[in-house]
Amino acid sequence: MVRVEIVAVGTELLLGQIVDTNSTWIADRLAATGVDCTYQTRVGDNVARIAEVLRVALGRADAVVVCGGLGPTQDDVTREAIAEVMAVDLRRDPRALALLGQVFQARHREMSLSNRRQADVPVGAEVIEQRLGTAPGLVCPVGSQVVYALPGVPVEMREMFERAVLPDLRTRSGEPGVISSRVLRTWGIGEAALAELVAPRLAVLDAAGEGAPTIAFLARGLEGVQLRVTVKAASVEAARGALDLEEAALRELVGTNIFGVDGETMAIRLGALLTARNFTLAVAESYTGGLVASSLVSAPGASGWFRGGVVPYAADVKRDVLGLPAGPVVSPVAVAGMADGVRKLLGADIGLATTGVAGPTSQEGLPVGTAFAGLAFAGGQTETASFEIFGDRQRVRELGTMNTLDWLRRRLEAGG
Amino acid sequence: MVRVEIVAVGTELLLGQIVDTNSTWIADRLAATGVDCTYQTRVGDNVARIAEVLRVALGRADAVVVCGGLGPTQDDVTREAIAEVMAVDLRRDPRALALLGQVFQARHREMSLSNRRQADVPVGAEVIEQRLGTAPGLVCPVGSQVVYALPGVPVEMREMFERAVLPDLRTRSGEPGVISSRVLRTWGIGEAALAELVAPRLAVLDAAGEGAPTIAFLARGLEGVQLRVTVKAASVEAARGALDLEEAALRELVGTNIFGVDGETMAIRLGALLTARNFTLAVAESYTGGLVASSLVSAPGASGWFRGGVVPYAADVKRDVLGLPAGPVVSPVAVAGMADGVRKLLGADIGLATTGVAGPTSQEGLPVGTAFAGLAFAGGQTETASFEIFGDRQRVRELGTMNTLDWLRRRLEAGG
Repeated sequence: MVRVEIVAVGTELLLGQIVDTNSTWIADRLAATGVDCTYQTRVGDNVARIAEVLRVALGRADAVVVCGGLGPTQDDVTREAIAEVMAVDLRRDPRALALLGQVFQARHREMSLSNRRQADVPVGAEVIEQRLGTAPGLVCPVGSQVVYALPGVPVEMREMFERAVLPDLRTRSGEPGVISSRVLRTWGIGEAALAELVAPRLAVLDAAGEGAPTIAFLARGLEGVQLRVTVKAASVEAARGALDLEEAALRELVGTNIFGVDGETMAIRLGALLTARNFTLAVAESYTGGLVASSLVSAPGASGWFRGGVVPYAADVKRDVLGLPAGPVVSPVAVAGMADGVRKLLGADIGLATTGVAGPTSQEGLPVGTAFAGLAFAGGQTETASFEIFGDRQRVRELGTMNTLDWLRRRLEAGG
Repeated sequence: MVRVEIVAVGTELLLGQIVDTNSTWIADRLAATGVDCTYQTRVGDNVARIAEVLRVALGRADAVVVCGGLGPTQDDVTREAIAEVMAVDLRRDPRALALLGQVFQARHREMSLSNRRQADVPVGAEVIEQRLGTAPGLVCPVGSQVVYALPGVPVEMREMFERAVLPDLRTRSGEPGVISSRVLRTWGIGEAALAELVAPRLAVLDAAGEGAPTIAFLARGLEGVQLRVTVKAASVEAARGALDLEEAALRELVGTNIFGVDGETMAIRLGALLTARNFTLAVAESYTGGLVASSLVSAPGASGWFRGGVVPYAADVKRDVLGLPAGPVVSPVAVAGMADGVRKLLGADIGLATTGVAGPTSQEGLPVGTAFAGLAFAGGQTETASFEIFGDRQRVRELGTMNTLDWLRRRLEAGG
């Protein structure tokens, strides 16, 4: 078992100017591959302080992942700090310089003197080739321990971590085989209720002991609560088979609360359901104000099934454009009328509509958080649902959007 | 000058299940009030490890703010760790218990045995009354140093930090008077270009030396680049006067790139401009797919000036609903037609429209990131603008939304 610490370098982190998402991402990847992470530290662009943090971390862990401070400017001193901890000099590495030269040549840019600093490498360290940015990464042995240095730009860091750091950590852990994970995305069920549903399976896995698949609960806010299954296996194929078995067992327990797998968002899932039936969709949004439409459009290929939307914010627009009769606008009758109106106006097979009280004040005698969704089909029949949502204006709109999309998803999955 | 470290407690942070926004928020507040923060650490729910992190931090700083681990469950062990570092016992505090009792009484809930643990206080520590949650905070002296313990729930933590921690830190720093800051929000100008515009003022403030206002650049992504001015003064009134002077000097240099002050978002600013002229607005969105409408609706009171929007995603919807003639849909002519069409359809004084290529593939021979915005006025005249936006599908849509809103903002500010 390898124990890893994460160090994020950058004065802008200490000033609260940017959120440290790199450490969170790395921690998530480590957890998904069964590596223990016990501490995370953030430190400014200062050689002595970075070195101090690395020494403290190496006093507790087998490996340290440090990100940031590998750029070309005088602020970027992670290389110097690592050399100090290794008690070696920095040397301009010919291979790193050649790689850097290629990057600049490909971009038709002149390589300045400060850029050349990025080819400085602590003696004894190994270079991780840069494929996306200009900063190479470093693998720096410190006795039997190791410091991995990665750039702070998230896309560059992630690519290098997957390609070079994770495999090296796996080798060091001395554990053969493959660790693989799969995420099942749910909506409409809280973490505690989901844990109750899954409990029988957790008991089985616990009884199976060491080496059995593990299940983690991840509360992802507007992306819902996720179940992450992690398996260890001898090969990629065996891992896939084990994940398939586990997914089937969990679907048995969790049922239609699961809307997607891995990168499958609610909009992508809805697109697949609509495409399978050759249905087109139009939306009319009151309190969600365009969030339903923009969620749907975020799915690649939305133009194949999404006709468009209307945000009838003023009451007379609901009447004149969607043909809604006079009367309360936050009601099941109104939302069904909006759904039918937008279906006809935009020539879609299905019309979906939202109305509700986003706040800050109550409306038509209804409290903040009261919301309705409506569906209209080509035959003229309509269906409605109601939600009670807790939170401020923005949260009511965001949760209402997800509730509405999930309602349509369940309706389409149920068929009919 | 007080030096502060931040410690975030929670195994879910180490597993990458949640992003540590508490440390970022505290760091930002410290920076805005002139307090130095040199290290931040995250640690799991483990007494020995939390104590170790607190000892390391107290070896470097005057004060430590620790958040998380004050809840009622057996995982919540921050109290125990602080008692260990203080080398004192935990004692159930009668005042803390009484406060806790009041909280539960107000919520008509039974106080369980585990809840009572939240009234355990290291001997010698002071309780910070809880006003929003159940967990009280703690002010724990360690020799001449201090550890502040705050709950991990952001809204509870923030309220307690502002009410109890910041004033205490100010007192400890020995600096009399008021520190106050103001944020000027810009759009349409990069950080480097903004720094060039502001350089003359920075030179003046540098020359004025210690005690002069300071200016920080904050790159806030989709909220734009912000200038934060911080002043020290003898009174709240004097601070406000100094901020007014500084804002005037910066507006002189930065001009119309500034769209708002402090909490004033682009939508709020647009709402104020439209309301001042008694104009109503309608929007038609192609590639932005509802993001312009939902941004506008996020402004409180939007119903006073926002008529609504149309997302004509399918080409024939652009034609049939907005009256656009056949032809290319990503063009200045098309976007002007969309603006005029939606203005008439929804009965608004001004029509605003967007069209563009969000990707992933090019369209009508135009590369990803090509975008147009259109404006139509009651008299029938139209105006258009074009943008070239770099990024993936989501980024093109988000940046395009801000560019479009900012274009309308500048147009309204210019009058005519």
